[in-house]
Amino acid sequence: MNQISIIGAGLIGSSIARNVSHHYPKCKIQIIDNSKSVLKICKKIKLGNFFKRKIDSDINKSQFIFICTPISSYKTIFSSLQKFDLKNSLITDVGSSKTKVIELAKKYFKGKFFVPGHPVAGTEYSGPRSGFKELFKNRWCILTPCSLCNKKKILSISKIWKKFGSKITIMNARHHDSIMAITSHIPHLIAYNIVGTAFDLGKKLKSEVIQFSASGFRDFTRIASSDPTMWRDIMLTNKKEILSMLTKFNKDLNRLKTAIQNDDGKYLFNKFKKTREIRNNIIKAGQDINLPNFGRKN
Amino acid sequence: MNQISIIGAGLIGSSIARNVSHHYPKCKIQIIDNSKSVLKICKKIKLGNFFKRKIDSDINKSQFIFICTPISSYKTIFSSLQKFDLKNSLITDVGSSKTKVIELAKKYFKGKFFVPGHPVAGTEYSGPRSGFKELFKNRWCILTPCSLCNKKKILSISKIWKKFGSKITIMNARHHDSIMAITSHIPHLIAYNIVGTAFDLGKKLKSEVIQFSASGFRDFTRIASSDPTMWRDIMLTNKKEILSMLTKFNKDLNRLKTAIQNDDGKYLFNKFKKTREIRNNIIKAGQDINLPNFGRKN
Repeated sequence: MNQISIIGAGLIGSSIARNVSHHYPKCKIQIIDNSKSVLKICKKIKLGNFFKRKIDSDINKSQFIFICTPISSYKTIFSSLQKFDLKNSLITDVGSSKTKVIELAKKYFKGKFFVPGHPVAGTEYSGPRSGFKELFKNRWCILTPCSLCNKKKILSISKIWKKFGSKITIMNARHHDSIMAITSHIPHLIAYNIVGTAFDLGKKLKSEVIQFSASGFRDFTRIASSDPTMWRDIMLTNKKEILSMLTKFNKDLNRLKTAIQNDDGKYLFNKFKKTREIRNNIIKAGQDINLPNFGRKN
Repeated sequence: MNQISIIGAGLIGSSIARNVSHHYPKCKIQIIDNSKSVLKICKKIKLGNFFKRKIDSDINKSQFIFICTPISSYKTIFSSLQKFDLKNSLITDVGSSKTKVIELAKKYFKGKFFVPGHPVAGTEYSGPRSGFKELFKNRWCILTPCSLCNKKKILSISKIWKKFGSKITIMNARHHDSIMAITSHIPHLIAYNIVGTAFDLGKKLKSEVIQFSASGFRDFTRIASSDPTMWRDIMLTNKKEILSMLTKFNKDLNRLKTAIQNDDGKYLFNKFKKTREIRNNIIKAGQDINLPNFGRKN
């Protein structure tokens, strides 16, 4: 690996840069980000070798092109990449929803190689300073192959993620989107919503909510402080699965509401008891490792 | 302080015992718990000096009586305590809802002293082994005075909580219940609900939810693994405030749903951006200190 490009130097992009520097010390890194201030930071912290605000013909030298921007920028980026040959390049991305991304890629990447990817890793912090090398360690990286890639290409990107410490799993895009709706997208939507509800309370009550936040609310605010652009894009690009899961969630919540209204303690107890089982399975599956906070808020 | 009683040796009760042993080494501790196996553990780990399954006349020797059981046991406990003089005793509790508790106390504690309390501290673990001395450190303890107490009694219990490391605040019970509905009770209800929704998915999907839980869902399962009896009781005793806040939550969630349906990215972005502000205020208020996990799962 001689040269790669990273488009979008946020939490994920900058963590990829740190991993490439570490594991492939001879590889040149081109950082592309349309924000002047982000690029300035990237230069300052020496995140790569070349820094650009726009994609130009140098992109052809990249063996791998990692797209790490919010999904709403994909159309512009895909359209820029379309203009270049990229004969020896593999394009990949890290977006949290996949079906819509593949639909778009098929329009722009005819004759090019694209392996859709999603490293299931993150923190609530954003920007190039917030990334860190250990972000992907022991985390899953999901690849959702489409007609723009073949086995060889999937293997070559898998090797890189494994170097970063990730475990690889392959599934189809629709299934990915359905799992992520319940494990990630709905939890974020709900967290944003409850923090929003608190925000709309009167000023005095709001300050008390902050004062006594240690009792559950605090954990929701951490989730709900994730990047708003990224999450807007996820909600809109995985809309079908999210709305369908939200319908299930609402139905269950209404059933709990009815139980509270009717003093149905038995129903509540049984529901609350069952959820402990899932928690225990998560602990068994080793998915409850809390990363030390290497990241910094930007 | 020569002698105290702790009724209910769970996370909170056992943490109080550990604090009394440490800060008042001469004080005798009577542990009362109706579970044989819990008492056995308490003896084994030397949590107190006397261990009983039922309240008897020895309770009169206690200067302070801490009720630390789920709220559904209060009626039985209050009725037992009613039979004794308790001339020199101050009764207090640690329950997470207060209006209903005070209503009940007024029926049983005529001529006795009762200061309702709520240490805003906890973990997802239960039982006598899960308690630890540092649980109350830098955490709020809310006292919600009623006609069964006076300034002197409030001061004397405040002193003890301060010794344990808590910060004291005093407010009326209804206001307490309203704040807790949004900061604690609704977050727990929502967390239980989303984990429950996942639980009802097909077996294959469920195992994948566990596998990819690191992306938000995991945090909900931690909250939703709290003691089911305690949380059933909270939902039923703070029902009015919880249902009223749930109506607000549902209204806001429906608005978000409509925005997703209508591709209203602007609305989503603004909502998601606003919540970061609350998070920043929590960090500023020093309420984001994560306790090291001193506790052990029982």
